Amino acid sequence: MHFASDNTAPVSPEILAAIAEANTAQVSSYGADHLTQRLTDRFREVFETDLAVYPVSTGSAANALALACLVHPYGAVICADEAHISTDECGAPEFFTGGAKLLTLPSPDGRITPMQIEVAVARALDGGVHHVLPEAVSITQSTEWGTVYNTTDIGSIGEACRRRGLPLHMDGARFANALVHEGCTPAELTWKAGVDVLSFGATKNGALAAEAVIFFNPALAAGFERRRKRAGHLWSKMRFLSVQLHAFLENDLWLANATHANAHAARLAEGLAALPGVRLVQRVQANEVFVAMPEALIEKLEAEGAVFYRWIELPGESNPIIRLVTSYATTADQVERLLSVAAQSITP
Amino acid sequence: MHFASDNTAPVSPEILAAIAEANTAQVSSYGADHLTQRLTDRFREVFETDLAVYPVSTGSAANALALACLVHPYGAVICADEAHISTDECGAPEFFTGGAKLLTLPSPDGRITPMQIEVAVARALDGGVHHVLPEAVSITQSTEWGTVYNTTDIGSIGEACRRRGLPLHMDGARFANALVHEGCTPAELTWKAGVDVLSFGATKNGALAAEAVIFFNPALAAGFERRRKRAGHLWSKMRFLSVQLHAFLENDLWLANATHANAHAARLAEGLAALPGVRLVQRVQANEVFVAMPEALIEKLEAEGAVFYRWIELPGESNPIIRLVTSYATTADQVERLLSVAAQSITP
Amino acid sequence: MHFASDNTAPVSPEILAAIAEANTAQVSSYGADHLTQRLTDRFREVFETDLAVYPVSTGSAANALALACLVHPYGAVICADEAHISTDECGAPEFFTGGAKLLTLPSPDGRITPMQIEVAVARALDGGVHHVLPEAVSITQSTEWGTVYNTTDIGSIGEACRRRGLPLHMDGARFANALVHEGCTPAELTWKAGVDVLSFGATKNGALAAEAVIFFNPALAAGFERRRKRAGHLWSKMRFLSVQLHAFLENDLWLANATHANAHAARLAEGLAALPGVRLVQRVQANEVFVAMPEALIEKLEAEGAVFYRWIELPGESNPIIRLVTSYATTADQVERLLSVAAQSITP
Amino acid sequence: MHFASDNTAPVSPEILAAIAEANTAQVSSYGADHLTQRLTDRFREVFETDLAVYPVSTGSAANALALACLVHPYGAVICADEAHISTDECGAPEFFTGGAKLLTLPSPDGRITPMQIEVAVARALDGGVHHVLPEAVSITQSTEWGTVYNTTDIGSIGEACRRRGLPLHMDGARFANALVHEGCTPAELTWKAGVDVLSFGATKNGALAAEAVIFFNPALAAGFERRRKRAGHLWSKMRFLSVQLHAFLENDLWLANATHANAHAARLAEGLAALPGVRLVQRVQANEVFVAMPEALIEKLEAEGAVFYRWIELPGESNPIIRLVTSYATTADQVERLLSVAAQSITP
Repeated sequence: MHFASDNTAPVSPEILAAIAEANTAQVSSYGADHLTQRLTDRFREVFETDLAVYPVSTGSAANALALACLVHPYGAVICADEAHISTDECGAPEFFTGGAKLLTLPSPDGRITPMQIEVAVARALDGGVHHVLPEAVSITQSTEWGTVYNTTDIGSIGEACRRRGLPLHMDGARFANALVHEGCTPAELTWKAGVDVLSFGATKNGALAAEAVIFFNPALAAGFERRRKRAGHLWSKMRFLSVQLHAFLENDLWLANATHANAHAARLAEGLAALPGVRLVQRVQANEVFVAMPEALIEKLEAEGAVFYRWIELPGESNPIIRLVTSYATTADQVERLLSVAAQSITP
Repeated sequence: MHFASDNTAPVSPEILAAIAEANTAQVSSYGADHLTQRLTDRFREVFETDLAVYPVSTGSAANALALACLVHPYGAVICADEAHISTDECGAPEFFTGGAKLLTLPSPDGRITPMQIEVAVARALDGGVHHVLPEAVSITQSTEWGTVYNTTDIGSIGEACRRRGLPLHMDGARFANALVHEGCTPAELTWKAGVDVLSFGATKNGALAAEAVIFFNPALAAGFERRRKRAGHLWSKMRFLSVQLHAFLENDLWLANATHANAHAARLAEGLAALPGVRLVQRVQANEVFVAMPEALIEKLEAEGAVFYRWIELPGESNPIIRLVTSYATTADQVERLLSVAAQSITP
Repeated sequence: MHFASDNTAPVSPEILAAIAEANTAQVSSYGADHLTQRLTDRFREVFETDLAVYPVSTGSAANALALACLVHPYGAVICADEAHISTDECGAPEFFTGGAKLLTLPSPDGRITPMQIEVAVARALDGGVHHVLPEAVSITQSTEWGTVYNTTDIGSIGEACRRRGLPLHMDGARFANALVHEGCTPAELTWKAGVDVLSFGATKNGALAAEAVIFFNPALAAGFERRRKRAGHLWSKMRFLSVQLHAFLENDLWLANATHANAHAARLAEGLAALPGVRLVQRVQANEVFVAMPEALIEKLEAEGAVFYRWIELPGESNPIIRLVTSYATTADQVERLLSVAAQSITP
Repeated sequence: MHFASDNTAPVSPEILAAIAEANTAQVSSYGADHLTQRLTDRFREVFETDLAVYPVSTGSAANALALACLVHPYGAVICADEAHISTDECGAPEFFTGGAKLLTLPSPDGRITPMQIEVAVARALDGGVHHVLPEAVSITQSTEWGTVYNTTDIGSIGEACRRRGLPLHMDGARFANALVHEGCTPAELTWKAGVDVLSFGATKNGALAAEAVIFFNPALAAGFERRRKRAGHLWSKMRFLSVQLHAFLENDLWLANATHANAHAARLAEGLAALPGVRLVQRVQANEVFVAMPEALIEKLEAEGAVFYRWIELPGESNPIIRLVTSYATTADQVERLLSVAAQSITP
């Protein structure tokens, strides 16, 4: 019953196999190999547009390198106050950008709005040179609260960005989970709605350690390669990053993995919501379930071996909140066992 | 005939097998796993001392993170002018340290001397607050010219460092190659001679993407973990970094791989040196051969499919210089074929 | 009727005279002069303790250099969300610290509380290496809302800091205004209450361009001098900074100037508060008056030549808010004229 | 006999008078004042072209802010190995640029050549993403060895820069001294010869603390104002910086001061060169005299009260070298006294 995070899952067998298959005799290093070079074509097919793609090994690296291309050290990135880039990357965006600020917006469900962005920009500009200059907006898909921006949400944010001349970054650590929830195309959920740069996540959804930074406007990527090298994120044996991403896309493995994870989250949510005294505090749209329950029930679950994190408090909710995350490797058995333990703990 | 670099080699089968074996069901992320935690014990055995060890995926990350723990932004690192950290990491040390300077020393064979260090420190201190403060010394083992510091060399540098209160860092991207050349213990070539921090290389010697930063004085590692996270170098599925290093050390794989590489470099050197008009411009002590030869011969080798880099010029050598690198995957066949092509090209 | 800021005032004649007097023949540069060297003694007298003092020319430089000595790049400074360091220095703390974060706390009157600090620290530590490490607390005296921390306030914050091992920084751009309001000694309002580092402001209170960074624990100042030099803040003709501070302290000029400014602010506040439809939105404890009034009145004042800034909105206040700042150079005439215009505008 | 530096001189009376004159009642802060705004026009007249000008208080700030506008953190600035930005600013360029590198070129007389620049660029580009990207060239006028680039020198460097698309920065801490030596116009010595950005020095030549960053191509200045603010270099009482520069230019004060300094340096040089055992090691073209002499003579001069610095060694010169700097405040008396002491010390 391991629901702590989707990054505790193993590597998808298909991805491991691809690594083994790529382990051939001498191959040019630092990305000058055939496997890396065909990656761009593969992503162009998936996203139905021209783009530039750069593999890196972690999501923090992907986000921070992307943002460093978008803002100056005297600039700012607008994002939600619970955004991963703000609370869980130990200041990576500040490090990679040379000290730019994150202007954080409160959000009850992890999503920010065009109006919030507009107000933040206006106030920042009002401060003149005394204030950092908003130069980008970053949204997370799916959000830190497990919710999903639909194409209309993104479209209106994209429009607000364009009005202010701000590029729009999407932290897509769980992009696949959002995509299969929306049931639209990758293009519709990104560049067609106004996303300029995407941190395309794979590690949480089956890869060993692989993410891709995708620039739908390749001009924004100027300097990316030197920034990546200088951050120690250019692999000499780059092909082993590239093939993870290939295998991830091959036969829609990424979509299958995300569909699996989402389905188990939905089942968890449904089962927990049916229990008295238990409340879903957010809509479950991807692979994360945020649920408030009595302390005694939480301790019972832990005692029975369930693993998960306690989350921050929410206004108006007196019970503690836990987060349950599913992954491609979550089994129906684990889900049912947790639900059964919970049900037994509650009924007298 | 691929002699461009040791990082074009594939992954040692034993290391790939270890990755596959570690691919089990849910495992705690970010290093809170058994495989990562036993790594410290393993390195303590190998180096016969207490130490702290942190896996990362590239050598530039290892070096830059290590140096960032040693110097302030207003500090300086003393190193050779051809040091990898100075010329081949796109400013990674400057980035990770927040803008510290590298004070570079000329070196005919890649090695720097205690006297050079002393003079550089004295001159820097003479500048008072107008000059950056020397706070660390970094040496490369084996050096960028394929030579090796022996234990006496390092001991005297270590002593110069201690006199000035400077920690000594070793960029050991090819540490194993130097070690098997010297035939001493890892302890003798590092902390016993005064090395405080070692970037322990594995990628060039058989790993997929794995290096370890080893602090022989764990107190110097304060802040390392947050620096690593913030640089995007903390893997969520950390075990897959850790097992590479385990397998690397297991059954002395690392030493076997380095011995193999060095032997082929020695054979290359011997064979080339015997040819008229060809001159080894450095002693061949590890797995790199720097050799001056007529342009026509270089072009002939290239035409026959040999792959290698041309190197910088050396005073007093009119012919161009090429670098040939061997690895654990170099075959006797490749070596003999290159020697044969060279011999045929020269003899009329 | 110029109430835009205290930094629009001229230089106190005594300070200008001191500059002229110091303009003698060749004097050693970069602070190796008698005038600079006796500055420490002078500040030790005023603050009744051992300390280290460093003159710089702006408040942003003072704050940012101070904070850079207190936190690592992976660290964080806890402060109020409207703190000058957060909203009005264009990211100077992030720049000087190498990308540390400001963890901002909401505050209705500009003051933060020990409990808020404790909660922020606990949450940050809970995030482990994924979160930046709180390493300092910064408070502003007087605050951005013109209020003043009394010695009890600071004492309890100081205690919260000590419990967590965090140094306490005070942005004292208007320290003199707070001091004369409290009527205590400089020592009581700083180190005796737990302040470790003070940005001692003079420019807003009569200097040309001079602030002093005062370390009550000189050990915290390690590296300050190189940081100052490297930031371009070490004046070659340092004596001209030093004498401004000397003259500022001489004959209690700083206290006289602040008393003057505060008195005029009090008179403004009293007069405005007596008008119907006008409301002081903060207690007036120093030289700033925040007052809500009907838009028509604001426009009338502007039309009559009054100069001031409109401020951010406050919850529960429907009228717009303006800020009026007095200085040592404000005249009773200006104050009475503004009050008179306001009174006439309101009464039919 | 104070020849340690030109920054030990007092402030020109005209400049002090201008400060006093500007000390009028409330004036808008942060540069929104009439005195600052007419500064641009004044500099446009002097340099006979459109330009953007930004006052700051130190030369290190001027240089570092200028360079930060020209290069990315992954970039590099090409300069002489003894350039002030490299050896005497405690890493200010690295700090302000976010860790860019200085690629330093050896120079026997402080001047670098177009050929050296071309070679450095070619080698850097040859390193691809592994090497920092050359993005600017910086020259010093007059140089650290007291020599002067003439318009032909600069023109050929400017051409080399244009060929590679690199902006050319001039550290003109002693620009006036070079200008009066060359006898050409400010335009001819800068933008007409290819200089894009000039750190225009005043402090060493009579100001209290004032330099100006001049962009002949104002498009390069994007972001300068926020960088200056964020570095703590935006004065609230900006007019006191601006009037220093006004007075400096008024009635050609700057040229008169520099002419005076140069003349005394020439006299010193002439007098010393005539002594047996004394050798000028550089041409004296501005206000610095570098002279090799026996240790005994140096000590004699010191014993008689002469103040100066000992300098770095030069190949082929066995005697120690000292540097003597003259300023607008140097008197003929001081010069003659030093020459007389020297002459007496040598003749038996």
